[in-house]
Amino acid sequence: MEGAGKFPEDESRGVYRAIHERRDVRSGFLPEPLGDEVLGRLLEAAHHAPSVGLMQPWRFILIRTLEIRKAIHDIFLRSNRAALDTYQGDSAKKYASLKLEGILEAPQNLCIVCNPESERGHRLGRHSMPEMALYSAVCAVQNLWLAARAEGVGVGWVSVLDKDALKKVLNIPANVIPVAYLCLGYVDHFAAEPDLERAGWEHRIPLDHVLGLEQYDPRWSAEENKSQRSRDILSDESHS
Amino acid sequence: MEGAGKFPEDESRGVYRAIHERRDVRSGFLPEPLGDEVLGRLLEAAHHAPSVGLMQPWRFILIRTLEIRKAIHDIFLRSNRAALDTYQGDSAKKYASLKLEGILEAPQNLCIVCNPESERGHRLGRHSMPEMALYSAVCAVQNLWLAARAEGVGVGWVSVLDKDALKKVLNIPANVIPVAYLCLGYVDHFAAEPDLERAGWEHRIPLDHVLGLEQYDPRWSAEENKSQRSRDILSDESHS
Repeated sequence: MEGAGKFPEDESRGVYRAIHERRDVRSGFLPEPLGDEVLGRLLEAAHHAPSVGLMQPWRFILIRTLEIRKAIHDIFLRSNRAALDTYQGDSAKKYASLKLEGILEAPQNLCIVCNPESERGHRLGRHSMPEMALYSAVCAVQNLWLAARAEGVGVGWVSVLDKDALKKVLNIPANVIPVAYLCLGYVDHFAAEPDLERAGWEHRIPLDHVLGLEQYDPRWSAEENKSQRSRDILSDESHS
Repeated sequence: MEGAGKFPEDESRGVYRAIHERRDVRSGFLPEPLGDEVLGRLLEAAHHAPSVGLMQPWRFILIRTLEIRKAIHDIFLRSNRAALDTYQGDSAKKYASLKLEGILEAPQNLCIVCNPESERGHRLGRHSMPEMALYSAVCAVQNLWLAARAEGVGVGWVSVLDKDALKKVLNIPANVIPVAYLCLGYVDHFAAEPDLERAGWEHRIPLDHVLGLEQYDPRWSAEENKSQRSRDILSDESHS
């Protein structure tokens, strides 16, 4: 059996390659700005995301001014310090050594925001799941990320940012939520593995660990509890 | 300027084609089940999504049993009735005419769940934005959706489902959140436009309406208020 509308082999390979070779890029951004054409293609890709009720709730704020990026980088520094303070011992040392953003190096930043209560889409699909508006905006992020990989453009998602402070700098109203803050730019290379794996922060788990049949797999919760216990033990040791 | 690692033209075309020709499929599913190989490729695509702190918080519940799909379809019917009750007049008639799911027609359903407080990833990136775990699981949905389009496999995201009822049927623990309920299967065709556009439920807006420079564009909120006012007027009329 073959699906209607199946892509030819080379196009299909492109889709899987983008998915498997996409990286969260925090370093190696080049100073040359993206051209308008490639930037337009990336934004159109984001704008073609699925959206609940066809509400298209994403709004894109493109930031190129260094002064604004500096203000946002300051927010990162404060938020990152607050995050660092939650780790102890070796974890704190390792956290402090990680590079988690490229706000100043990437010539373009993009903030994707969403008003989850917009009337666009006439609330279809949001009665049981009001969070669907925000989820739609996340789909726009992922579309842009994959298109960027095909274009040889690096994208990094910075989540170490106080949202209220970010809203102040970008004049975002109270009812609108910053969903993603992205750094975009040409890069010197794409890494073969995720940065956090190479740095020894976390390892990737195989697919069969996350696949269950017909029902939630109770082993998933057992594993969570186990890793919670190891953390408690580690935490005790680092205090001893 | 050209980015390092830019894809060749045919592979890049595949990425953009998947993004632009992806559809939310609610009808036209064929009864033949997906083969294990294609299903494996789709799940691997989802599993290669970006995740905050490399936590890979998604868990996939593959549902093929008709009995379980029937139980979930019953939840849809109840949730859809509750949603319908929030519309009046012509909107209610139009809502009632929409086909919003393919739970029984699609031979595979997939529920993607997430424990947003899992210790995997050691909380990196979740101090300022705890919602990042859920957002990571949404990125997995979009990866799967695009890979499915390349394979000629239709995907529909059903958000008209009471989450608590769904958790009961699938034995999902209290601290785990159902992020997406998807219907998957081969289809007789992919539509040229979104179903909701063809049905006249909502129209798509052009990219320049959603793109702002350096700051939040206050026209976005003005437009929201305008459409809120039109709704109030429409609503008054339908009651008059």
